[in-house]
Amino acid sequence: MRKEIVFITTNAHKVEEIRDLADVESKDIAIEHLDYDYPELQLDETEEVASASADYIRENKGMTKPFFLEDSGMFIPALNGFPGPFSAFVFRSIGNDGILKLMANKKGAERRATFKTVVALCESSEKEPILFVGTVEGKIADVGRGEGGFGFDPIFEYEGATFAEMSTEEKNKVSHRGRAFRKLLNYIS
Amino acid sequence: MRKEIVFITTNAHKVEEIRDLADVESKDIAIEHLDYDYPELQLDETEEVASASADYIRENKGMTKPFFLEDSGMFIPALNGFPGPFSAFVFRSIGNDGILKLMANKKGAERRATFKTVVALCESSEKEPILFVGTVEGKIADVGRGEGGFGFDPIFEYEGATFAEMSTEEKNKVSHRGRAFRKLLNYIS
Repeated sequence: MRKEIVFITTNAHKVEEIRDLADVESKDIAIEHLDYDYPELQLDETEEVASASADYIRENKGMTKPFFLEDSGMFIPALNGFPGPFSAFVFRSIGNDGILKLMANKKGAERRATFKTVVALCESSEKEPILFVGTVEGKIADVGRGEGGFGFDPIFEYEGATFAEMSTEEKNKVSHRGRAFRKLLNYIS
Repeated sequence: MRKEIVFITTNAHKVEEIRDLADVESKDIAIEHLDYDYPELQLDETEEVASASADYIRENKGMTKPFFLEDSGMFIPALNGFPGPFSAFVFRSIGNDGILKLMANKKGAERRATFKTVVALCESSEKEPILFVGTVEGKIADVGRGEGGFGFDPIFEYEGATFAEMSTEEKNKVSHRGRAFRKLLNYIS
């Protein structure tokens, strides 16, 4: 029987990414999309944000199928971890231009950045969330490049190309979210 | 009998501000400080963040006295509301220098900023929080000035002076937090 799992997110790009990955990896898993804007805590640790949101959903939403959600952030050590756990808000407000301005005088190793995804899976509402973490190290590009992806992808450079210059399949191979999603798919398949 | 109320915050500066204000306004209210780092939701509206935190405390902390907490943010329209609800994290990570960099090419009305405080008061754990809101309109200074205050005070200019150039008493007269605290003190006294 084909496995079914619900991905709770308001971001359709992320659903596309995991469906693409499941296809590439030939996983026979139906990934349903539940477009629900669950509460997120203001915490510095992505793991804690994702766990707390998963707990909220299992206590309040009466989910009848296994479900997961994810929380991702971009962390720039030279900016003390900014934008970190508040990446979505920072992207909406100051955008990639804002990040580039903050990095204007940063050179070499100071331009390092890490993307991190934590997936929280609940196999049922009775079970504590299981976490799958993916990270990728890269650098902040001098200017945004590429038309693909979303969010900070145009300014996050990995081995010479920005995430926005890669296809979804290429990006999934190396990205934080691809790595976390692959662990999730391997676990449930 | 002297009234007692508990201020729940990890920020001692804020306790000092309201005690100073209560003195100046001759309010006979004992303000206890409970240094507790309660959970805060990631929400764009300060009112909702403060209400949700107050609800969390009345459901989980077994408070036996009236208590309040506050949530404040600085909102810059030219940056789409940044840093807004995440002001504390933004201050810790990129600081006033980061804000000044983001504002480097902004002139005149583009430098406008609003500070906002929402105080949530619970007269008992059984009662819904009552909100008191204070705002102040100012502008982002070209460079930080002054040694007083805390957080974004050195770069927030009101009628020619930054909040960090004012005494606590002067700042309380016009500040977002002073305005919200005054409403709170008038309500409970």
